[in-house]
Amino acid sequence: MRLETLSVFPEVFEPYVSTSILGRAQDAGLFEFYAHDLRNWTHDRHRTVDDSPFGGGQGMLMKPEPVFEAVRDIAAQAQDRPHVVFFSPCGRRFDQRIAARLSKEPRILFVCGRYEGMDERVYELADEVLSLGDYVLTGGELAALCVMDAAVRLIPGALGDQMSAQDESFSDGLLEYAQYTRPASFEGRDVPEVLLSGNHAKIAQWRRLSAVERTARWRPDLLEGAGLTEDEWELARRAMADAGLGEVGDVE
Amino acid sequence: MRLETLSVFPEVFEPYVSTSILGRAQDAGLFEFYAHDLRNWTHDRHRTVDDSPFGGGQGMLMKPEPVFEAVRDIAAQAQDRPHVVFFSPCGRRFDQRIAARLSKEPRILFVCGRYEGMDERVYELADEVLSLGDYVLTGGELAALCVMDAAVRLIPGALGDQMSAQDESFSDGLLEYAQYTRPASFEGRDVPEVLLSGNHAKIAQWRRLSAVERTARWRPDLLEGAGLTEDEWELARRAMADAGLGEVGDVE
Repeated sequence: MRLETLSVFPEVFEPYVSTSILGRAQDAGLFEFYAHDLRNWTHDRHRTVDDSPFGGGQGMLMKPEPVFEAVRDIAAQAQDRPHVVFFSPCGRRFDQRIAARLSKEPRILFVCGRYEGMDERVYELADEVLSLGDYVLTGGELAALCVMDAAVRLIPGALGDQMSAQDESFSDGLLEYAQYTRPASFEGRDVPEVLLSGNHAKIAQWRRLSAVERTARWRPDLLEGAGLTEDEWELARRAMADAGLGEVGDVE
Repeated sequence: MRLETLSVFPEVFEPYVSTSILGRAQDAGLFEFYAHDLRNWTHDRHRTVDDSPFGGGQGMLMKPEPVFEAVRDIAAQAQDRPHVVFFSPCGRRFDQRIAARLSKEPRILFVCGRYEGMDERVYELADEVLSLGDYVLTGGELAALCVMDAAVRLIPGALGDQMSAQDESFSDGLLEYAQYTRPASFEGRDVPEVLLSGNHAKIAQWRRLSAVERTARWRPDLLEGAGLTEDEWELARRAMADAGLGEVGDVE
């Protein structure tokens, strides 16, 4: 997999991309990373990438020409055509399913905006426009890092032998069950006894119910798609009632 | 404002926090940043912060003791008690309103998990548990960076004189209007004429309608809370129909 970014701050990626799981995945050849500097596609002495908005207003916008030129040039630098991702609050909300799909792309180019936004015409270069959530960041760099991070860890082998992305939040449509490690008692706070029992069937059952209960309490919107049994629905309804929530759909 | 992180990768923050808008805000004294290394609160030769989960399973969990000790120690290092933020898919979805609230906190400590998760008992240290969205990251570091970035840019003065956070997506409950800069015509793609007209009333009207239309097309869920007029609702309904969407609430 070939991951690339186009940005006016190409230096902010490497410290994260070369650390921990992403660093090991890169060392293992699971992906290559290239950070392109948008200013390389300017042609004036000041390497200008921004200009003021037509119609007035505060702040500066990213100009269309360098972005068009850069995306076309970069696309031609390798055999696979890149899947081009832009970020915007207008985009599709990024989620784990999109991460799984992107983890199978041979080549992705993330175009990272800065300043108050980008000239609207550049979005036609996008194969996909993503939004990280309903908040505004100073630029697309962190968004690109989050998407790369979420996608790379799903590449087989990226998490190493002893870890897995199969048994975690959203993998079965539920939040993950509560987890505990040693000590069994910490300042009076005890680990649930069943987890110390060695009874694997009971542990599996406790974990499933823990996942259902936590999802009912914190993310009841996920329950409909999680394929619960009748008994699990009953538990979910009790957990929602305890949390002061009504039926699924009533939740604000 | 004092922003702090607790993490096993304290080195990943500074390259971002010292760049661009965050770097300038730090230089201007708008916030101070401290990255704490969780391993400083371990007491064994290997500086162990993780252990295997009770009840079996893949991967490692972050142990409770170093986290409890670190959070208590760090809290005592300055006069203001920190607002302690953890990240988990079980947390409240981070959004622009939370960013605005956090931008007014005198001191925030972000506790960043790694590995497969954290021992459940540590969450009692949290004043607030946030989720960045329905995806799984390799750790809380990027989440902390996103929240810091979104909050710091809302501190008065952080964006400089010529930029403002008042006229952007979510500030009035809508997505931002389409924006254009020079050239007025780029490879046959023209900027909407009204924006070149110099008629400020017409431009303001066009922008409002652009915001309504884009929100109707891409984020119809936001419309209910945006205080639209009757005419704007009519436009929104037409935009939704064009996009193949039904009434608000019908959207999947």
